[in-house]
Amino acid sequence: MAEQPLNFEIQAREGEARAGIMTTRRGVIETPVFMPVGTAGTVKGIRFEELESPELDARIILGNTYHLWLRPGIETIRACGGLHKFIGWERAMLTDSGGFQVWSLGALRKITEAGTEFRSHIDGAKCFLSPEISMEIQAALGAEIVMAFDECAPGEATADEARQSMELTLRWAKRSREAFDQLERYGTARGSERVPNRRSVVGVEVDPLATASGSVSGQALFGIVQGASHLDLRLDSLELTVAIGFDGYALGGLSVGEEKPVMLEVIEDIAARMPTDKPRYLMGVGTPEDLIDAVARGLDMFDCVLPTRNGRNGQAFTSQGRLNIKNARYLNDQLPLDETCECSVCRRHTRAFIRHLYQSGEMLASILLTHHNLAFFLDTMRRVRQAIRSGKFAKFRREYTEQLSSGLG
Amino acid sequence: MAEQPLNFEIQAREGEARAGIMTTRRGVIETPVFMPVGTAGTVKGIRFEELESPELDARIILGNTYHLWLRPGIETIRACGGLHKFIGWERAMLTDSGGFQVWSLGALRKITEAGTEFRSHIDGAKCFLSPEISMEIQAALGAEIVMAFDECAPGEATADEARQSMELTLRWAKRSREAFDQLERYGTARGSERVPNRRSVVGVEVDPLATASGSVSGQALFGIVQGASHLDLRLDSLELTVAIGFDGYALGGLSVGEEKPVMLEVIEDIAARMPTDKPRYLMGVGTPEDLIDAVARGLDMFDCVLPTRNGRNGQAFTSQGRLNIKNARYLNDQLPLDETCECSVCRRHTRAFIRHLYQSGEMLASILLTHHNLAFFLDTMRRVRQAIRSGKFAKFRREYTEQLSSGLG
Repeated sequence: MAEQPLNFEIQAREGEARAGIMTTRRGVIETPVFMPVGTAGTVKGIRFEELESPELDARIILGNTYHLWLRPGIETIRACGGLHKFIGWERAMLTDSGGFQVWSLGALRKITEAGTEFRSHIDGAKCFLSPEISMEIQAALGAEIVMAFDECAPGEATADEARQSMELTLRWAKRSREAFDQLERYGTARGSERVPNRRSVVGVEVDPLATASGSVSGQALFGIVQGASHLDLRLDSLELTVAIGFDGYALGGLSVGEEKPVMLEVIEDIAARMPTDKPRYLMGVGTPEDLIDAVARGLDMFDCVLPTRNGRNGQAFTSQGRLNIKNARYLNDQLPLDETCECSVCRRHTRAFIRHLYQSGEMLASILLTHHNLAFFLDTMRRVRQAIRSGKFAKFRREYTEQLSSGLG
Repeated sequence: MAEQPLNFEIQAREGEARAGIMTTRRGVIETPVFMPVGTAGTVKGIRFEELESPELDARIILGNTYHLWLRPGIETIRACGGLHKFIGWERAMLTDSGGFQVWSLGALRKITEAGTEFRSHIDGAKCFLSPEISMEIQAALGAEIVMAFDECAPGEATADEARQSMELTLRWAKRSREAFDQLERYGTARGSERVPNRRSVVGVEVDPLATASGSVSGQALFGIVQGASHLDLRLDSLELTVAIGFDGYALGGLSVGEEKPVMLEVIEDIAARMPTDKPRYLMGVGTPEDLIDAVARGLDMFDCVLPTRNGRNGQAFTSQGRLNIKNARYLNDQLPLDETCECSVCRRHTRAFIRHLYQSGEMLASILLTHHNLAFFLDTMRRVRQAIRSGKFAKFRREYTEQLSSGLG
């Protein structure tokens, strides 16, 4: 059997929901999986040791191509031996293509057939990103999973706008695939003495999580299905993206302003038609409820800034819904953030203390809320996987959702 | 033998330097000891789990009476069962009296015989702190060591100003002692149903660090020697403070603007005359060199914000001196902050990565620099203790100081 960049095996199903194993050159990842977002090479507010601890046990984290490209820059990351070595993380990573980040810049960007011209949010410098450049940057970063360079249409785009955007994404997907394959064959354009050949990396890295369940090598490339809220466009996008051929498929351009029922309808209609033997990745979504709704529709991978960003803003995700630690009702509250949570924050600290830290502007407030929220998201996905494997996902989903809406106090 | 609030035993000497054991109701503390500063109930930027880890193993941390009194307020801390329970820290604590903090407010304060009137730095509210109020707050906080309420003269004070300030501190020391003793006998003025009697606390707390080497109970009260840079005043202050009688003695009002040789002269002259059987605490000092210089002159306890504050500002303390992570020379630097350091930060992360985090405004920069700096200070003191116990302190001091000034790169 030829070496694959990614081995994906579904081991249990319940309805559309599926539980499986994804093997990368840096370890085994059980799906459905939540991937904490590490924009600038750090999951904000938490040390890597905590992410690796059995309590969180994050098997894969994200890095953002756009941010890392602008700062510290690819030359530095190359000089430091690639992204994993630069940041000190030996587990798997996924890098986005920069497409969505650049799209988010709004008025600061200009899109042409060749690529996207934009100004850096750091120093205003003029930059240009294309499928080929994104692939070269992602090759230098060296994540296990890299994403095709795409364009994202807003949720309220007209059918015409959305079609143009989707068709551009398709042409870019083809160019991404070609550039990726060329880099894979010949190393990067800058020469292999500066960029470690991806295949050679496999030999030198010791993988603490690897098992014998699949020989994998190199980077995997995922394609992205676009088409805004238009089902016909989404279907065309899916068909033509699959025709190009990728190691996994993502749903992009969701949770960007459309109504939640619209998002779920797109997921439901498209997921059912996505290749069953490849990982399905819902980009940038969402709340714990969203994740479970998407798992129920057959999605396998998720990333979202909610647990980290909302944590820094004083919000805790709990089994009974969200808790705003700024609320005066928590002034003397001796309970943990979540009474049913067994994370190190909930075992040790009270709402009263964390509220005090937040009100005092203490960094520890962000640190503790981030830790708890990530523990909550990762534990939810652990329970989702167990539920699917034991054929009790429907029951789990019903009970989890009921409890979520039961409210705090 | 009657129960003492603090048991202090010197076990080794080399010159004036001494290594000993201080037993509190919340564990054994080896001296000389560095105490991380936890101003608002948190040592900024680090979790308590890290402080307790064998790598740092901080046996005692500080809390600031002034800050905790203003926010969250004593009512909240009482409602949450005292400071230890409120913040989730079971090891020993020391609270300052608020005197120095209020003094630092400068123009915002007005000092009278009765106490100090000042405006809160948080909301401008008018507040009043006196020896009696400070003792009552510190009783409610419940630290193992509490400090007499003092007044601090600036380093450049005239002899007259310094004498007036020192004499006021003496009268306040006496009032502090009396208020403390009364609280110790009768519980706080607010009634024992709201404030746990200190002696009863001993019964319910499980102390993970306690040994059989001393039965201790209640809070210990330390007096503070003032007198600015005037040796005659310092000597008077020492004699009359000792006459009042405390469980330990502190040198206050140093490192507040005077020249370093002046500070060392005061320490040298006064430390030699301080009671030999009580802990000697140098307040708010200093750099690793300062700590070692003071240990050589017979001091046992230290606290300082340098490792945490400078960490947040991008500065690392290393065995070869200070390193400013902002410096462009570290852009691609693959070395750890300190090549000889074995802390978890230095084992995992490079200067290049930490510089990138700092430049990107990432919280993890502060977290990692704080952790390393505290590890460096605490490890230095561990090595100081070992050196004194093995009769090699003079050699250690010489080598440590030489290496410190060898410079980076």
